[in-house]
Amino acid sequence: MNRLTATLLISCPDRQGLVAKIANFIYANGGNIIHADQHTDFAAGLFLTRIEWQLEGFHLPRELIAPAFGAIAQPLEAQWQLHFSDTIPRLAIWVSRQEHCLFDLILRQQAKEYAAEIPLIISNHPDLEWVAKQFGIDYYYIPVNKDNKAAQEEKQLELLHQYDIDLIVLAKYMQILSPEFMTRFPQAINIHHSFLPAFVGANPYQKAYERGVKIIGATAHYVTSELDAGPIIEQDVVRISHRDEVSDLIRKGKDLERVVLARAVRSHLQHRVLIYGNKTVVFE
Amino acid sequence: MNRLTATLLISCPDRQGLVAKIANFIYANGGNIIHADQHTDFAAGLFLTRIEWQLEGFHLPRELIAPAFGAIAQPLEAQWQLHFSDTIPRLAIWVSRQEHCLFDLILRQQAKEYAAEIPLIISNHPDLEWVAKQFGIDYYYIPVNKDNKAAQEEKQLELLHQYDIDLIVLAKYMQILSPEFMTRFPQAINIHHSFLPAFVGANPYQKAYERGVKIIGATAHYVTSELDAGPIIEQDVVRISHRDEVSDLIRKGKDLERVVLARAVRSHLQHRVLIYGNKTVVFE
Amino acid sequence: MNRLTATLLISCPDRQGLVAKIANFIYANGGNIIHADQHTDFAAGLFLTRIEWQLEGFHLPRELIAPAFGAIAQPLEAQWQLHFSDTIPRLAIWVSRQEHCLFDLILRQQAKEYAAEIPLIISNHPDLEWVAKQFGIDYYYIPVNKDNKAAQEEKQLELLHQYDIDLIVLAKYMQILSPEFMTRFPQAINIHHSFLPAFVGANPYQKAYERGVKIIGATAHYVTSELDAGPIIEQDVVRISHRDEVSDLIRKGKDLERVVLARAVRSHLQHRVLIYGNKTVVFE
Amino acid sequence: MNRLTATLLISCPDRQGLVAKIANFIYANGGNIIHADQHTDFAAGLFLTRIEWQLEGFHLPRELIAPAFGAIAQPLEAQWQLHFSDTIPRLAIWVSRQEHCLFDLILRQQAKEYAAEIPLIISNHPDLEWVAKQFGIDYYYIPVNKDNKAAQEEKQLELLHQYDIDLIVLAKYMQILSPEFMTRFPQAINIHHSFLPAFVGANPYQKAYERGVKIIGATAHYVTSELDAGPIIEQDVVRISHRDEVSDLIRKGKDLERVVLARAVRSHLQHRVLIYGNKTVVFE
Repeated sequence: MNRLTATLLISCPDRQGLVAKIANFIYANGGNIIHADQHTDFAAGLFLTRIEWQLEGFHLPRELIAPAFGAIAQPLEAQWQLHFSDTIPRLAIWVSRQEHCLFDLILRQQAKEYAAEIPLIISNHPDLEWVAKQFGIDYYYIPVNKDNKAAQEEKQLELLHQYDIDLIVLAKYMQILSPEFMTRFPQAINIHHSFLPAFVGANPYQKAYERGVKIIGATAHYVTSELDAGPIIEQDVVRISHRDEVSDLIRKGKDLERVVLARAVRSHLQHRVLIYGNKTVVFE
Repeated sequence: MNRLTATLLISCPDRQGLVAKIANFIYANGGNIIHADQHTDFAAGLFLTRIEWQLEGFHLPRELIAPAFGAIAQPLEAQWQLHFSDTIPRLAIWVSRQEHCLFDLILRQQAKEYAAEIPLIISNHPDLEWVAKQFGIDYYYIPVNKDNKAAQEEKQLELLHQYDIDLIVLAKYMQILSPEFMTRFPQAINIHHSFLPAFVGANPYQKAYERGVKIIGATAHYVTSELDAGPIIEQDVVRISHRDEVSDLIRKGKDLERVVLARAVRSHLQHRVLIYGNKTVVFE
Repeated sequence: MNRLTATLLISCPDRQGLVAKIANFIYANGGNIIHADQHTDFAAGLFLTRIEWQLEGFHLPRELIAPAFGAIAQPLEAQWQLHFSDTIPRLAIWVSRQEHCLFDLILRQQAKEYAAEIPLIISNHPDLEWVAKQFGIDYYYIPVNKDNKAAQEEKQLELLHQYDIDLIVLAKYMQILSPEFMTRFPQAINIHHSFLPAFVGANPYQKAYERGVKIIGATAHYVTSELDAGPIIEQDVVRISHRDEVSDLIRKGKDLERVVLARAVRSHLQHRVLIYGNKTVVFE
Repeated sequence: MNRLTATLLISCPDRQGLVAKIANFIYANGGNIIHADQHTDFAAGLFLTRIEWQLEGFHLPRELIAPAFGAIAQPLEAQWQLHFSDTIPRLAIWVSRQEHCLFDLILRQQAKEYAAEIPLIISNHPDLEWVAKQFGIDYYYIPVNKDNKAAQEEKQLELLHQYDIDLIVLAKYMQILSPEFMTRFPQAINIHHSFLPAFVGANPYQKAYERGVKIIGATAHYVTSELDAGPIIEQDVVRISHRDEVSDLIRKGKDLERVVLARAVRSHLQHRVLIYGNKTVVFE
């Protein structure tokens, strides 16, 4: 179904009649809802919803949907986003030396699992330029150290702007982005190679090995200024045994990292993720 | 949240405005929706929804909700059920010799995981009467063979009527119910000890062992007149290895059977399951 | 296969010929090995093995096996344990208020999944005495607070001695055992209701909810004087979503706790667990 | 550990002293066993073992190991294989139009997860030649239909011979190999996109959708002349819901197929798989 659709992601204080108000707005304008999902966080007193409808036959012209819904949203104190399915987001993939997540994301984009473009790869190492070349993607090698970090982040931000990037995907980029950077470009998803909050920080596989856990995991999360503490989008795990050395954990972990990051990026691109507080709702 | 609520389960041909119509009905009568979930099966052209709202503050008296909604449902050609959260369903658990599912269901009911009563246990063996006694539940030993099947099913149906039973849970009841029985009491959930449709019929663990599978499963489904072919509610699996003999498969399978049956019964009791065709929607 | 067997669990510095030496000892005495498993931890330079053989036809009388093998083990600097399959270990189950793990362990023992006896239940609450009574097990209510802890632990130790207990199973016993207690009775398995090392300490489900994880876990481990830091025997996880409140995490967690603790106890009772450093090898 | 090792895979009728005999053979010649695993299938009266030792310091010259062990094996009526870790197997990957498994296998080989070479890709479609070119692998487009099947299989066999191939990996090759072909080149692993034996044959995802299962799977197995009935090496599953259409099943299935096939190929290449009857032992 490649129907042209609009999607609203809304969060607001819970009150009576929210479902009716929003559904009426769409129905009154001739829209056909194809997906509607809602969640009420009773502890937080918050109503969260995702609603998607077909634009074919919708009476409101596209450019008037936002102002029209804005008038409804204001008295509800709602935060909301409006997305159209023919707006194709542009991703920058950031990598260091490991290629497994990079390849995975590119191949999914090529197989049309993702409605997205990948025009830009940024790396602090030159190693993976060959992958970029294979697929005709621009690759920028921007080495970062303590002394040049601020300057290099300027360069990175320029590239994001130049390539009109909507989302950074940190696909095993083994560097921390500065809080300043995150303030200026807050849309970034990272894959962490542990079952957070276990094994925060560096070398999680080594730590997992030393602790003797029987299961390892991977976590995809939005990046925030606090390391490994951003809102979690997706996690998964795999069983290990005493036979697995650290190198086996790394190998098994790579399979996890690929699939966990891939699912998180997919949910984000389909506008299924709502952040509230330090948590996410992922509508399915 | 032990709020008093009403739940509507609805399926009807898909058309514009269904979400709005249903939400308006509730909102217009002062109801506060606390859960709403919908699904559109585009292939079947079918709209399915589950909507739950608080009865506190709802202007329509309880006994008028069904007729009032019926007037809305008729032109939509909708099939629908209305449930109130203070109506406590009554379960009959049917067993043969194995006690693991029986204990599990009783303990969940005692721990208030289930809002249900369990007044009746029926068995074709006398073995588990001690369990019934421990928990003060009536136990009827009704042996069944080819010759007495019709007569014994009459007895069983009488008991179901006498105890005012809403749902049969076949918790490792190793007998097939006749099509006639199913016509007269169609509400029954069974646990099958395989990952259906693999290993239909008897001795699935033996068959799984012989085929050399690396994973075994269990399936909870509604019972229909065709053996092991009813709508699936829940499935789960566990990994096995060459070290596992048939007795290990049985042991590992028991843990699966308990949890798969428990989840299916829970979903049913919370009115989260909609059957359509030979499939289910299980709203979460 | 209820064959009478002997099992050796051995760990020693790795060197050539260990498998041959041990296998020869058994073969030379007429033993038939039915299970042999080994693991070499190359980082630690350690060889670990579990070997089980039939006693039928074994030429060495039982009481001479230990001294005879001791003579072989000494020059290898091996640590070892010898177990006979007809020695039935005696368990004390410790509980607080939640009955799910207690019931689970008792039912597995009754179903002969465990070759063990359960003569004793100790609790810091009176709530679960009814369960003990149902199954004819002695129940001791020993409330513990800061002031009486040392005295109550004396009572507990006396009971363990009086009932000739081999293993304590902390089946949701919500109290910490003192280091002194652990020194005097070091054989104890605990179930922790998180995916350790995430959410160490109290209220892990609340913490998991607040962190917004997408998967929760449970961990069975040997108890050491450092809280939640003992060698891990078994872990498992279950997926959660934004729809799950803390009460749902607790409910889903209970199913995990039961099965994770059950598997750990089973592995221990079958002499499949070797502790080394702060880790375990669990032979399958 | 890139140690040079030899590996014996042995199956023979069970009898006393087998572990000792084999371990003595290695120890007597100065070998250091680094992995030993065994399994006894009591029902079949069969002993199966995998034993790996370092060649450094082993007194027997390589070319004498096979004849020397053969002398031991004959009276035991053993079937056995001897492998050296520096013999690099050569794989032919067969594909149709889907590239996900192909890319996955190539990338694992490039990342040195596999000690193998991939010199040859055979396809019944021209679509994936670009992938072969990216990695410098020879690609042969050999279309097959009823009329030319025998002739084309001759060509395929010639290529396998010419490229000195040890193992065929059917990585979503949507054609059946003839029994004659299998007789002449029996070493082939296939990935089937269902949880066998459920949904044997074509279109398993469509069938799974129609049956309404809640979990789908993938199965890697050795190819035999009976369709989808060969010995299973590895299986895995993923949960689906009513929201998943057939296209979602295909997408989720692709992730499964990749990882299940990858694990099976890895186990095979590490000589961890022993076939007996129609089943496998996969030593870990």
